[in-house]
Amino acid sequence: MSALNVTQKLIQSHLIDGKLIPGTEIGLKIDQALMQDATGTLVQLELEAMKLDRARTEVAVQYVDHNLLQTDFKNADDHLFLHSAAQKFGLWFSRPGNGVSHPVHMERFGKPGKTLVGSDSHTCAGGSLGMLAIGTGGLDVAAAIAGQPYYVKMPKVMGVKLTGELPPWVSAKDVILEMLRRHDVKGGVGKVIEYYGEGLKHLGAMDRHVIANMGAELGATTTVFPSDEETKRFLKSQGREEDWTLLVADESATYDLHDEIVLDELVPLMALPTSPGNVVPVREVAGKPISQVVIGSSANPGLRDFWIAAEIVKDKFVSEEVSFDINPTSRQTIENMIDNRAFANLIKAGARFHQSGCMGCIGMGQAPASGTISLRTMPRNFPDRSGTKDDQVHLCSPETAAASALTGKITDPRDLEKLYGMTYPVFQAPEKEIINTDMLVAPPESSEGISLKKGPNIKSLPHIAPLLDHYEVPVLLKMGDNISTDEILKAGAEVLPFRSNLPEISKYSYIVIDETFYDRAMKSKDQYGGHIVVAADNYAQGSSREHAAIAPKYLGQIAVVAKSYARIAWQNLVNFGILPLEFQELSDYDNIAQGDIIQFENLIGKVKNREEIMLKIKKENGMNISIPVKHSMSDRQIRVLLKGGIINDFKEKLTT
Amino acid sequence: MSALNVTQKLIQSHLIDGKLIPGTEIGLKIDQALMQDATGTLVQLELEAMKLDRARTEVAVQYVDHNLLQTDFKNADDHLFLHSAAQKFGLWFSRPGNGVSHPVHMERFGKPGKTLVGSDSHTCAGGSLGMLAIGTGGLDVAAAIAGQPYYVKMPKVMGVKLTGELPPWVSAKDVILEMLRRHDVKGGVGKVIEYYGEGLKHLGAMDRHVIANMGAELGATTTVFPSDEETKRFLKSQGREEDWTLLVADESATYDLHDEIVLDELVPLMALPTSPGNVVPVREVAGKPISQVVIGSSANPGLRDFWIAAEIVKDKFVSEEVSFDINPTSRQTIENMIDNRAFANLIKAGARFHQSGCMGCIGMGQAPASGTISLRTMPRNFPDRSGTKDDQVHLCSPETAAASALTGKITDPRDLEKLYGMTYPVFQAPEKEIINTDMLVAPPESSEGISLKKGPNIKSLPHIAPLLDHYEVPVLLKMGDNISTDEILKAGAEVLPFRSNLPEISKYSYIVIDETFYDRAMKSKDQYGGHIVVAADNYAQGSSREHAAIAPKYLGQIAVVAKSYARIAWQNLVNFGILPLEFQELSDYDNIAQGDIIQFENLIGKVKNREEIMLKIKKENGMNISIPVKHSMSDRQIRVLLKGGIINDFKEKLTT
Repeated sequence: MSALNVTQKLIQSHLIDGKLIPGTEIGLKIDQALMQDATGTLVQLELEAMKLDRARTEVAVQYVDHNLLQTDFKNADDHLFLHSAAQKFGLWFSRPGNGVSHPVHMERFGKPGKTLVGSDSHTCAGGSLGMLAIGTGGLDVAAAIAGQPYYVKMPKVMGVKLTGELPPWVSAKDVILEMLRRHDVKGGVGKVIEYYGEGLKHLGAMDRHVIANMGAELGATTTVFPSDEETKRFLKSQGREEDWTLLVADESATYDLHDEIVLDELVPLMALPTSPGNVVPVREVAGKPISQVVIGSSANPGLRDFWIAAEIVKDKFVSEEVSFDINPTSRQTIENMIDNRAFANLIKAGARFHQSGCMGCIGMGQAPASGTISLRTMPRNFPDRSGTKDDQVHLCSPETAAASALTGKITDPRDLEKLYGMTYPVFQAPEKEIINTDMLVAPPESSEGISLKKGPNIKSLPHIAPLLDHYEVPVLLKMGDNISTDEILKAGAEVLPFRSNLPEISKYSYIVIDETFYDRAMKSKDQYGGHIVVAADNYAQGSSREHAAIAPKYLGQIAVVAKSYARIAWQNLVNFGILPLEFQELSDYDNIAQGDIIQFENLIGKVKNREEIMLKIKKENGMNISIPVKHSMSDRQIRVLLKGGIINDFKEKLTT
Repeated sequence: MSALNVTQKLIQSHLIDGKLIPGTEIGLKIDQALMQDATGTLVQLELEAMKLDRARTEVAVQYVDHNLLQTDFKNADDHLFLHSAAQKFGLWFSRPGNGVSHPVHMERFGKPGKTLVGSDSHTCAGGSLGMLAIGTGGLDVAAAIAGQPYYVKMPKVMGVKLTGELPPWVSAKDVILEMLRRHDVKGGVGKVIEYYGEGLKHLGAMDRHVIANMGAELGATTTVFPSDEETKRFLKSQGREEDWTLLVADESATYDLHDEIVLDELVPLMALPTSPGNVVPVREVAGKPISQVVIGSSANPGLRDFWIAAEIVKDKFVSEEVSFDINPTSRQTIENMIDNRAFANLIKAGARFHQSGCMGCIGMGQAPASGTISLRTMPRNFPDRSGTKDDQVHLCSPETAAASALTGKITDPRDLEKLYGMTYPVFQAPEKEIINTDMLVAPPESSEGISLKKGPNIKSLPHIAPLLDHYEVPVLLKMGDNISTDEILKAGAEVLPFRSNLPEISKYSYIVIDETFYDRAMKSKDQYGGHIVVAADNYAQGSSREHAAIAPKYLGQIAVVAKSYARIAWQNLVNFGILPLEFQELSDYDNIAQGDIIQFENLIGKVKNREEIMLKIKKENGMNISIPVKHSMSDRQIRVLLKGGIINDFKEKLTT
């Protein structure tokens, strides 16, 4: 493999384990890490449990952009905790109000040629600068910060050739919406999307951010752009020209898969409810009345995106029927918007300005009215994500959003020419942006004397004991097929505030299936030292949330016995020290019942040596039977599991 | 009474009923009305129930400033409802994001010499322009909009003479804090506070707003300032010079009570937790670490207030430990702050900017972290009002707040001279402010074809039947002394969202006392057509909330029998058609029990003629006894009650 594309170059230069063969596991050295606040509290508690002294990445940044509303003490307490944790572990801290993680990271820290993992699914936005930037679970980010490699299956690389130039009133958002129209929300799974071609010339770095960001909606592992003259111009405008390096595909580089977009042919597009993949031309749905327009989020964070909206509404006034909400990206964006008059023009035209953060994109404010259409430049419109049941969120470009805000109905921005006699305004990026880094707190030289500030809702992770050789524990729950992580540990406004409080959140374990589970588990922990659960096929499918493993573990879960597992959840079980056992004979599922008492003997040796494990089952009627089970963990996983999980493993590595 | 003070002139010129004798009831013609959204939805439902065609006040404005966070559909639905109601009833509509009611009203609608009632306790802020502006319950505001007089006890007038001039670093907030230090939170009850004297010369109209606004914290009926040259300058700066008239006290005018403040002697003051009356010099508590500073709210809404904070932090950066939250008053304020660079200076120094509205002042966002001090320029620091349990909110001037934001601890702003070599910046009010009225929607010429937009959480008020002559109903609840409206209908985040949904909110009736009440009441409504409750002394004390009458009425409450009533609640009962009966013999309280069945005979005539009403009581054991009760309603109240309450009364007046 002599000629490499950009993705392959990034992987090659960071490869610690494995080979560039799609589908096989590779281990990558990680240069940078980012966290946001909603996932970051758990990462910090994991770093605490690992007894990390100081971050080993080149750069790691804790952002605060999700939970800014502060309707009670919990969010404000989290902010103080994250600040103290950043100081203790040697991380940068981006203070509440400083801005949305992805664009701020790109402006201040992103570097061509580097790897980045982040505990947020839109971390892939970093690909706009020629980075390999991957969104992942919190424990992977904690591991990277602790200096461990990041393991992932080598993806296929899809090369997307861009030719021509975008026509007036069409912008980067329409490019990614076109990709979603073609490939839908699973079209990117197992792939890196790499853009190339002369069409890139006219796409600014922040336009590339728009496209890279919503690669997450394609399901892609990540998105990659080359680092070229535009990347250089961008970094220069951020006062960081020295961080630029050229990174382009070799001339004869190839791709595993191919696509091409002729930019001139694109029209304004829109994703209809309730999927980012449900894309149609704006023209097809024009005329429908709307109640809300939101400009902003990590999917359209650029100065250009606000400026173009401001130019469109300048000296006009938004429809009386429309709430025109502006969700500015960052403090830096606001300062530059004041400078180029976009801010004043938006306010004058009727905008409601909000603090810099993710806001309604993650249902944190500005939920739309019942039964009405909300147009948003955000990346997602999954059902009810806005906070309003049966919402009708449509995704579009800032051009389409601003045009529709004026008319009060869905409007193709090209119609502004005849409606208002406008010509398409062309953005001139400032040679040097106003830069202000005061709200980015640098890690202190030394962490000595710094302690974690924990409000009453923030609890350290408890110690997880290593696996024992002998157990005699009850089957506390027997479940069927396709149990989801939402059933194991549900999400929602009632539960999420306890994200930093394992004792509290564990009370919701399996509550969807059995309300008595928590009480029975606590009793069983006292009486037997733990429990197991039994499931059928595809246990723990759905969301990747780690709480669906760590919470049951906290309640004393020793093992799960199932017919089969969902991939990510199976990894999570091992990572948190729960033994994932499989029936040798699927029909044995019928021979085990809730209430049975299970004996494990010589467990450690059998796990280590991959021997058959016999479950000795005492039935409630006094009968005794035995059934054989097995596991399919790798050597590395066996080592991790025996120690009680990955946190204990790292703790050992970090302290020896 | 030949020489009149300003208060007396305002009352005299609007007197419909009664005389200017303190303590006696007077009826006043009302020129203007305002509502905010949290109370306004009920007012609009009341106007709907009254079948009002069009507002009969000179100006009535529905503001939206309280519930702006929109974490689900309810607030956004309320905004659409209020907009449609404003159109239907001929009211102005100030759209969400346009700003806080009191300062916006002052800037756009306030007129010297006029009367104003508002369904918000800080309506008294209008007194800054020489108005008689009174905060009151929603039904009073609905009545005023329907053209009815406003009834209130003629207050005593306390004249407060201001002499001299405020020293550097001391501002209007310190004047009202000084008043609170002297008179505490009940010192103004039954009084109008009227300021006069040569000290007024140096207090701008918005400074007077600060003082008038927090008259509410003194418990005053309202606060009055004269309309003088400064008032003229202010109205001119708002493009409304023609709305100015001179209104000053006659030379030999007298006051019922007297006080005097020598402005030169004032120092920076601060109200400590958890009462606005708990005032000390800032110097006494200086040095304590803080976690939050909030600038804004109706208590410090002026352009000057933000400008002075911006000047103090200009070219500096707020402490790493402090969240510096800016709560801009209105869109107009933001536009002027962009113009005078205050906005950019605040952002640059680390501010988190929020949308224009009341925000944390009513616990809608920016709750502080546990166990930490929050400094706010807001008017109230009652326990937990910020949203954080056991909060430590301190109230102060923008000068003190900004100085403390820089140092990270409570700081007397006079210390900025030695800490930063600053001299006190002096504000020059712009001759003409930037004015933009686009977010104030004028009432349409005609309401024809306009219907109310009601989301699923907004329900019309049900018809209340007039009093019948005969009832046979159970005693559903027997209570003791001092039952508060919080026990009758509790507040809080769980209940408040149902403020526009009587069927839903009524489920919380008496839930604090008896969880079975709602179910039993609904059953009793079916079986007996209603119920009564029994209480001892001081029934329904506390908050004035009308829901504590209308919700039980909805559940079929015919009467309350009590030893005595709290004043406002007693009026509310009558207003919503519940008969407030009193024991003739207090000892009869012991002769009536929960579960007893009560017969009323010839009720209408007895109420009308003030005859003794005999309750015929069937005990559960079959025994029958009789006990005498009475009422003490006025003729007007009797008329209202017999019709089923004030809504029915107005409906009749408006449609005949």
